[in-house]
Order: sequence, then structure tokens, then C-alpha cells
Amino acid sequence: MTHSKAYAAQAADKPLAPLDIERRELRPDDVAIEIDYCGVCHSDIHTVENDWGGSLYPVVPGHEIIGRVQAVGVDVRKYQVGQVVGVGCMVDSCRSCSACETGLEQYCLKGMTGTYNGRDRHDKSVTLGGYSEKIVVSERFVVNIPEKLDAASAAPLLCAGITTYSPLMHYGVKAGDRVGVIGMGGLGHMGVKFAKALGAEVTIFTRSESKMEEARSQGADHVIISTDPAQMKAARETFDVLLDTIPVPHDMNPYLNCLKYDGKHIVVGLLTAVEPPLQAGMLVMKRRVLAGSLIGGMPETQEMLDFCAEHDITCDVEMLDIQNINEAYDRMKKGDVKYRFVIDMKTLKDSA
Amino acid sequence: MTHSKAYAAQAADKPLAPLDIERRELRPDDVAIEIDYCGVCHSDIHTVENDWGGSLYPVVPGHEIIGRVQAVGVDVRKYQVGQVVGVGCMVDSCRSCSACETGLEQYCLKGMTGTYNGRDRHDKSVTLGGYSEKIVVSERFVVNIPEKLDAASAAPLLCAGITTYSPLMHYGVKAGDRVGVIGMGGLGHMGVKFAKALGAEVTIFTRSESKMEEARSQGADHVIISTDPAQMKAARETFDVLLDTIPVPHDMNPYLNCLKYDGKHIVVGLLTAVEPPLQAGMLVMKRRVLAGSLIGGMPETQEMLDFCAEHDITCDVEMLDIQNINEAYDRMKKGDVKYRFVIDMKTLKDSA
Repeated sequence: MTHSKAYAAQAADKPLAPLDIERRELRPDDVAIEIDYCGVCHSDIHTVENDWGGSLYPVVPGHEIIGRVQAVGVDVRKYQVGQVVGVGCMVDSCRSCSACETGLEQYCLKGMTGTYNGRDRHDKSVTLGGYSEKIVVSERFVVNIPEKLDAASAAPLLCAGITTYSPLMHYGVKAGDRVGVIGMGGLGHMGVKFAKALGAEVTIFTRSESKMEEARSQGADHVIISTDPAQMKAARETFDVLLDTIPVPHDMNPYLNCLKYDGKHIVVGLLTAVEPPLQAGMLVMKRRVLAGSLIGGMPETQEMLDFCAEHDITCDVEMLDIQNINEAYDRMKKGDVKYRFVIDMKTLKDSA
Repeated sequence: MTHSKAYAAQAADKPLAPLDIERRELRPDDVAIEIDYCGVCHSDIHTVENDWGGSLYPVVPGHEIIGRVQAVGVDVRKYQVGQVVGVGCMVDSCRSCSACETGLEQYCLKGMTGTYNGRDRHDKSVTLGGYSEKIVVSERFVVNIPEKLDAASAAPLLCAGITTYSPLMHYGVKAGDRVGVIGMGGLGHMGVKFAKALGAEVTIFTRSESKMEEARSQGADHVIISTDPAQMKAARETFDVLLDTIPVPHDMNPYLNCLKYDGKHIVVGLLTAVEPPLQAGMLVMKRRVLAGSLIGGMPETQEMLDFCAEHDITCDVEMLDIQNINEAYDRMKKGDVKYRFVIDMKTLKDSA
């Protein structure tokens, strides 16, 4: 076992605080990683605060991990000591079901193992995430970070990036398509970058006039104020795909009405009730699709990183000292970050 | 103009009663049809009773029409006098938009013209449906009824048939797929027949134990009592496609939970609110799709009829004298028909 400094929540109502944890001895297919950067995802807050239930304390969050390989198990072939690598939302799966066999480990029929708050499939220990100095992960769940990418701003690609890249690819977004991105946060701004890189004509939907300029600075070709009925009416039946990144309940019907026949409204931000209720006629009358999508599988995560290197895409980030993590959570709850915090893990290593 | 006997509702609270109507002189592309049979669809009742608003009285319902060609316009090439033909839910569309050009006239960007309660695109008259002796329809919206099909029991194929055939084809249902049909009425029993003919393993979901036998007699391989939590739990993540024919609000979440990852839940029966609310996580966590589908285009309607001839598929019908139409509506509201009423139009022709 190896000691590792970390930051952990001991209970739902406790702030994150330093905690020494242990990382396992290398299994034959394991990669030991010294963590340089870790993005801060809204899921981290939800798990720390037990919003979804089932949190296993102490919780060490973090699933947007970038680091360097420190050691490898005897069977590891893909990675070498010193290589810059990443770890996203999963660290294991059954590896043998139809989903795993097609590289869709996130839909593993036996359930994927989360990078934190999961149960290790071998020793049943609770998995501990990236707010730590070190992590040990099976080779299959490690990705290569192309040299061309800035390592710090690549960290959120492991969650925010793949979450938006995967559905755009799955639904075949291509040059000339009209894509709308709903929501302008960590997920939304990545959606805009990917859709633009794929050649789509991209519109950001935002609720307030005051965000017009910010929306344009994100690279959108057009901005629609979703609270303006005239603008929404003018957009009726004009979109091929909508990427909906809003994490709280919202009326989807006005957006669905903006889709052409056969258009797709893809939900990536919401897990709870669709309220006000969906009107089924919005789907039936135009053969529209309301779909969901969850992160992406390991092969597609690597593909996304390579795509980012090719198209010069990273996340817009604000660097964070780990000592300020609780303050960062408070700011995230108010939407006060453009667009993702990334912890510089030197601030953990150098701490007393 | 040609006189035609018909049955019409003069107001939302009036029963259907005899009315003499006129059919237009043939335009160059028109086919004049003497109607032999007309199926009775729930939409007929909704329009007669103005449930959806916008009913234009007098309403002559009926969009599951089978008859024989009586005369053709000078430009008609596909049909000849005496030929057995059908007319479904549409009698016109713009014919030049992207939807019409790909044979998806039901999604016409300018709006299709309904067989009844629509507005003729040329003379702006209100369209009058199949509860009548005669109808005049443009060739493009007429289909050939294969000789092999029993004409009376083929009538409901024009609406109930195509409504269920089209989404099964669109979503590529194939041999070995696990398909669930939700609802056992006119739409549901057609869904079972088509899914079986495509080689799928078909399960009927029904709320009551008492319908088990009926479900099996419809040809289902399996029956699941949807009100039994144990049966629903056992069905978790086992279906590729669900065809949801229920016309009233119902909880879709337990059904969604029965879909595998990438599974599709296709709504064809409901136009109103999805209540209790859809849980977005049901879509996101397994990349599931909630889709809608509306009848089918003209080429696909012909394809469906040919498929029916090839696979010996017709609708299970109960023949009806038009004089009993109001009583039939009352029975339909109670779900008391197996599975579709078809009016024998001789009873109209022979009436005083």
C-alpha cells in the first residue's frame, strides 16, 4: 500500500478537509498515477452532500484526473513511466458484457465502477477519487493525454468533454447541421466547441439578454433568448439537434418545438423529473426523439482526446488551490465559474 | 359536383346523423372512389366531440377507407376504374418540402391536409371523411389494396396499421429483437402482428391478470402484468423496443426501466402530458430514447399493405351498420371492441 494525501468529506454536512488515504499495491494491469490536476464537477458536490443518496464516507471526489505514470503492473502494455495520462468517471466494469465488449463500459450490464463512491470489484473497498496525490487504476480505464493538449485545461475533458462529445457523435452531427446548446456552463461551453469543430451551425439558448455577449464569446453563431416567446417562435422547427445541459428541471416543450421533424433533443444534465411535464404530442407529431446520454466509453474517450488535440480544443478553466475547494463549491452553486475549476495538485503535495 | 350520402356530427354534443354532402368534380390527378368500408378510429370520436379543439362542423369522420375506383382524372396513371384502393389519414400536403420529397408527407413542413377536418389546399373547403358513399382524392394519397387482402379487415390498416408498422421499421426491428407492446387495443394488436412478422420475440404488457389469455390469443410470446412489481423488476433492461399505444397519460418510467441500454420507447398513442413525470435519469443512465411517431408516409403505407399481403396480416374487426355508429362510439369509449369497428358502407347506400 502507498500513502497518499487527499481531501475528503467525512459527512454530508462537513466541509472537505485533508485526509491521508492509501492506494493499493499494483495489480498486474494497474497503472500508478501521480496526479497533477483534477477538475471539479457538479457530481463531486452532489456526492459530497449526498444529494443522490448512497454516499459512502469518507468521500474523496474527483473524476477529471490528469497525471503522470509513476509505475506500471507487469501486464501493462499501453503505458510507460512518465507518460501523461488521464482518468475519467470510471475505473472498472465487468469487461465481458455486450456493453463492455463494444467499448460502452459506462452502460456495463453489471454496473460500472465509479472513480469515487464506487466499490472496487476485487477487494470491495470504496473507490476514492482524484482530489489526491496518487491513484491506481487498471490500464483499460486510463487514457493517453496527447502532448499537444495543455494538461491542466484538458482535465475537464474527462467528464464535461466526453459527456458532450459522445452524444454529438452518436447522433451523427455533421457539417451544416443546426445544433442548439441549452445551458452555458461547463458542459454547455464544451458542447459549443465540439459542435463547431464538427462544422455545425451553433446556437446557444440562454435565459437572459445579459448573457448574449458571453454566449458569442463561447463561439456560438447565434444566440436565442429562451424567455422571449417571439424568438422561440421564430426558431420553430429549425434545429437538427439540441444538446440540453441544464441540470435542474425545466420546461422542455418550447425547445422540442424548435426541432425539425426527426430532430433529437439530447439530455445530458438532468437526472430527475421532467417538469413541467413533457407533452407527448411534441414527439409524436414530428417523429422527434428525446434521448439521454451518459459520459462515453473508454475507446470514445480516447477518440475525443485525440479529436481535441487535432482541433485545439480544451476546457476554459480557473485554477484552484485545493485549500480553497469549499469556497469553490459555494461559487459553483451560484454558477460563478467560467467554466470549470481545476485543482492544481501541487497545492496538495506541498501542503504540510 | 356529385352528391354523396354521409354521416356527420353537427356539433360537439350532437350524435352523428345522416347528411347529404357533395364531392368535387375531378381535378386532373383525382381519383373518385366508391367507399365499401370505413374503419372507426378513436380520432373520429375526438374530432366529433372537439376534444382537441378546432373541429369544423359538420364533421364527417373516417380515415380508414377502402373502396373501388369509380372514375379517374385525365392525368391519373396509377389507378384504373374498378381497382380496390384505400385512403388513410391524409389527402394532401405541400408536395415540395423536404418531408414530402422523401415520402414523409405526414411531417409536411406546411402541414398535411387531413382526410377530414382539414382544409382543401385549392378551394379551402373543409375536408369530409370516409363515413360517406364516395370520396375524391388526389392519386398521390391513394394506395392500392392488394387483392389477397380481405377488404373489410384491411380498412384499419390505413391508420392503426401504418401507425404501428412505421415506427417498427424506422427503428429497424428485426428477427430476434425483444419487442414489448403496451396496450391491447386497435393499435396494440396490430403492433403485435407486425413485430411477430418481423421475427421479434413479442411481449404484451397489460394491467390485469384477466387479460392474460386475450394477450396470448393476440399472438404474444410472453405477457407481463404491468401492475405486478415483481414481474416488472424481472423485465428490467431486457427489451430493445417498446411500442406504447396507450392513449391516456400513464407512468412511462417503469416501462423505460425495462429497456436495455440504447433501447427505444416509441409513443404512438398519447398526445398530451406525460404524467407522472418522466425521470430524465431513465434516459441518461442507459442512453435510452423516448420517441414519437405519426402514421406513415404514402410510400411506406403502400409498403405496409404489400407487407400485410405477403404475411397474411389484417386487422381483427367487428362489422358495423352505420346506423349504429353512435352506439359503437359508446362501446369504444369503454374499450368494448376487438379490435376495430369497420362500417359496412352498404348500410349507408341502402338507407332511405
